[in-house]
Amino acid sequence: MADDWWGRPILPVLPRLFLDHFHRTSLVAEGPDGLAGFLVGLLSPSLPDEAYIHFVGVCPDARTSGLGRTLYERFFDLARDDGRHVVKAVTAPVNATSIAFHRRMGFTASDPVPGYNGPGTSLVTFARTI
Amino acid sequence: MADDWWGRPILPVLPRLFLDHFHRTSLVAEGPDGLAGFLVGLLSPSLPDEAYIHFVGVCPDARTSGLGRTLYERFFDLARDDGRHVVKAVTAPVNATSIAFHRRMGFTASDPVPGYNGPGTSLVTFARTI
Repeated sequence: MADDWWGRPILPVLPRLFLDHFHRTSLVAEGPDGLAGFLVGLLSPSLPDEAYIHFVGVCPDARTSGLGRTLYERFFDLARDDGRHVVKAVTAPVNATSIAFHRRMGFTASDPVPGYNGPGTSLVTFARTI
Repeated sequence: MADDWWGRPILPVLPRLFLDHFHRTSLVAEGPDGLAGFLVGLLSPSLPDEAYIHFVGVCPDARTSGLGRTLYERFFDLARDDGRHVVKAVTAPVNATSIAFHRRMGFTASDPVPGYNGPGTSLVTFARTI
């Protein structure tokens, strides 16, 4: 595994375990040129009311097409079908695009939460009822 | 979130989502001085036969006490109770202590798998039937 300059391992944002263990609640969108976008989500095993969107990617060419909205709405549907009533997600405070997108999708956004994932991390949290 | 020296976010190995969503299949061991060890595991929602151990920590003072073995055996029990037959885990190739521990616990260890979590990552994979 790659190390950062303090010798600590850098874990990718999307390690393989998310694909191995949550592919049944994740979505892939194919366009004319192949992969156009994807969403990796999970139905929380420990919080029976909650679903969580871990990572979403949309191809630059597809970013004004509404694909992000479609992926989220499909995930809301599958979460509702499993009896979930809340969807959560997080992003970095610098990610203004993500914060604006989540607000348009009906999420409330928190102020940045210092130390959310440990010392030196700060994240904005999103929540929406479905 | 902290950045590495290429400006990429450093995600901790154990972000809060693992505690939020998998605490019902995770374990905490308390000793006379407080926390002595913990195991964060999950029952794969997508692979009905599999359970996965994501992270284990044992306090230095407790490392010859068998606490790691006890945590693993408790996790095997809860995975068996849910009908799981395989437990998997991964570690960095440099982590000789982890590789030796998993072999003692009955896991087979793979050769390092290049690119396991993307470019520049290489991991040893462990598997054990229960």
